[in-house]
Amino acid sequence: MPRYRLLIEYDGTPFVGWQCQAVGVSVQGALQTAIQKLTRAPASIRGAGRTDSGVHATGQVAHVDIEKPWHAARLCDGINYYLKPLPIVIRDCAEVDASFDARFSATARHYLYRILARRAPPALERNRVWWVTRPLDAEAMREAAPALVGHHDFTTFRAAQCQANSPMRTLDRFDVTLNGEIIEIRASARSFLHNQVRSMVGSLKHVGEGKWTRDDLARALAAKDRTACGTVAPPSGLYLMSVDYGPAGDGDNSEADNSEGGLTRR
Amino acid sequence: MPRYRLLIEYDGTPFVGWQCQAVGVSVQGALQTAIQKLTRAPASIRGAGRTDSGVHATGQVAHVDIEKPWHAARLCDGINYYLKPLPIVIRDCAEVDASFDARFSATARHYLYRILARRAPPALERNRVWWVTRPLDAEAMREAAPALVGHHDFTTFRAAQCQANSPMRTLDRFDVTLNGEIIEIRASARSFLHNQVRSMVGSLKHVGEGKWTRDDLARALAAKDRTACGTVAPPSGLYLMSVDYGPAGDGDNSEADNSEGGLTRR
Repeated sequence: MPRYRLLIEYDGTPFVGWQCQAVGVSVQGALQTAIQKLTRAPASIRGAGRTDSGVHATGQVAHVDIEKPWHAARLCDGINYYLKPLPIVIRDCAEVDASFDARFSATARHYLYRILARRAPPALERNRVWWVTRPLDAEAMREAAPALVGHHDFTTFRAAQCQANSPMRTLDRFDVTLNGEIIEIRASARSFLHNQVRSMVGSLKHVGEGKWTRDDLARALAAKDRTACGTVAPPSGLYLMSVDYGPAGDGDNSEADNSEGGLTRR
Repeated sequence: MPRYRLLIEYDGTPFVGWQCQAVGVSVQGALQTAIQKLTRAPASIRGAGRTDSGVHATGQVAHVDIEKPWHAARLCDGINYYLKPLPIVIRDCAEVDASFDARFSATARHYLYRILARRAPPALERNRVWWVTRPLDAEAMREAAPALVGHHDFTTFRAAQCQANSPMRTLDRFDVTLNGEIIEIRASARSFLHNQVRSMVGSLKHVGEGKWTRDDLARALAAKDRTACGTVAPPSGLYLMSVDYGPAGDGDNSEADNSEGGLTRR
């Protein structure tokens, strides 16, 4: 059976998250249904990041095995046809080697978190940002963010339900830029723990509010204690932007992403 | 009666446009209703740009007279309270002199037009861009756009129903940048004719497709003939970004904006 790699964009607002759940429409479930309608055979797809309910993606990657070979562009158009009117779109599709695994072959994941800090609620960016009603000091956030970069025990920034074997992760990028009214925070790593980005962003927000210093952020990390974490930022501001494959930047090839998901590899 | 200037953001998708219509919800009507609920008195507001149905704004400006004086921040919060759940938000509010007129005091209007050119439909940018399924040559568009800048007779780029007294306008800015996947076109002028931005963008798209050259665009302008216009771009990609007040950049102080509206000054 040929294997296909899908590049997927979605607005996470109406979904229970990436992963199929007992109740509600998941991105994974909607994709599997669309593929089944197109190919008239059951389909099982695996994504690189199991995003939570309300989390968006511009560059989620998944793989799926399909019984008979398809021209990639026709497969892409066909799935998109059956996805309508849901806000999920296949941006690109390519046949890949059977050894390719969207989750376990990934060598880096890139997330963006967007904060709108102003008194007035968002009209155009509703469900697309974390709306914070008081001003934030983006410069203080920018200076503090690097305190989390590197190879660390991220227990503080890990959800209780995280099922990863180890709390050790290597955070390659965690930086803050101001884009007009929006504070943009970019986080990159081979893999993340469950809720890690949202936990780090929520803690960094305390720095923006002047409640925490950079040292407080570093101490929260060093505590290796979930109770040392600040607020967990809401899902509406989080975007899975892209996933890298190819030569690993560092370390352990078996490290799977647990940023948003439940199940571990086995 | 004190006069207030409102800075307004909205998602134009669900509205019949800025201006009150016989049928449907308009942005102006929704604002007047919210202000009336708050102040318990009829309110009449006037906007700087009468955006069409589906056109968005991040920086629309309007003025309204309110019988009793309000603290500006409380007025802002109060209107926002009564606007919920509509995607309209007052970003800022200030008391202004009675001589201030949101429409006639404006000295410049700044619009942004966004095009997404790719085969896959937009998921996150649905209703927020012009989705064009074939690739566009953004560089060719960038080179051609200045052909329209300057003081010209813009009859070619003026809707049949435009009621402005004169087709003469001074286009101060018309330029193209690529922001990730999105082609962004910025247009600035003291005022625009009805559908002028969308007509210019639709014609510029022909350059991006390779159907028109820069000379064809200049010839369309010189024709002063509506039938020489290219496609009119859809409203979903258009945003009224901001309106300037204060010393005029050029010319005629009585020149009112007719970019999207019906009525002329008298």
